[in-house]
Amino acid sequence: MEHDESIRLEPVATVVGGRAEPFDDDWNTEQAVIRIDGSRFGPDSLAGLDAFSHLEVVYLFHLVDPAEVHTSARRPRGNPEWPPVGIFAQRAKNRPNRLGVSRCRLLAVDGLDLHVRGLDAIEGTPVLDVKPYMAEFGPQGETTQPAWASELMRAYY
Amino acid sequence: MEHDESIRLEPVATVVGGRAEPFDDDWNTEQAVIRIDGSRFGPDSLAGLDAFSHLEVVYLFHLVDPAEVHTSARRPRGNPEWPPVGIFAQRAKNRPNRLGVSRCRLLAVDGLDLHVRGLDAIEGTPVLDVKPYMAEFGPQGETTQPAWASELMRAYY
Repeated sequence: MEHDESIRLEPVATVVGGRAEPFDDDWNTEQAVIRIDGSRFGPDSLAGLDAFSHLEVVYLFHLVDPAEVHTSARRPRGNPEWPPVGIFAQRAKNRPNRLGVSRCRLLAVDGLDLHVRGLDAIEGTPVLDVKPYMAEFGPQGETTQPAWASELMRAYY
Repeated sequence: MEHDESIRLEPVATVVGGRAEPFDDDWNTEQAVIRIDGSRFGPDSLAGLDAFSHLEVVYLFHLVDPAEVHTSARRPRGNPEWPPVGIFAQRAKNRPNRLGVSRCRLLAVDGLDLHVRGLDAIEGTPVLDVKPYMAEFGPQGETTQPAWASELMRAYY
């Protein structure tokens, strides 16, 4: 193995408010606060962030038991109409390292509180990074995806 | 603090080939391989991935010395024409937890090797997650960003 040392991370923020229990759809109806850890960061860490409309957030699926992480293939959401796909070919939360990545709208910056809409993370979620969303960081060129993914995502946001 | 335990992650893959030294622009000219760790994962972990055109990759800026991480505000790339912005309002690599997130084109899946183009990570980079890119996971609604970000990104890809 080239990387035999584990990597240690510390949350930079916590999700406050929003959805209390994980379920899969209608995330765009949710508002929440990403509260930056005031013991390590000041308002300077957020200077200029309010000039962006959207954030990219990296967080931990902290309720997933590491013993329940999948490493091979299964049907997304257990739906028998969709094909078995590998854990790296889907975005299920029971994944190695339990990392979630998604975009949300930034509504306001208030001190160390980021008010957001559409973050698909539940209350109490440890946030590992907050980045501004820049249009140029979107996928280069046209994207394609299989039919099951489009069906699964139909009501997600 | 609500989260007083550090989080331990293990790379799931390594970047092989591509750019050997970090510099900032023209990433879309680079091809590389994301090599999945064969000691922990088999080809099943990638089943169906080739139906997607793009990946979303989470990786570690492993060459950044943790002692050199920024926590407040500075000018992106040190450019005096751009305003000082907080570390969470820019995508500089010297950031808490040293996490990078970006999209790249998937050219081919060959066993445990993902051949990609446009991944902005150098050779040897530890990869923490690979997700399929789904169009619906893009930002909801129109995005806006400050002028400095558009200028900085002009030649990035």
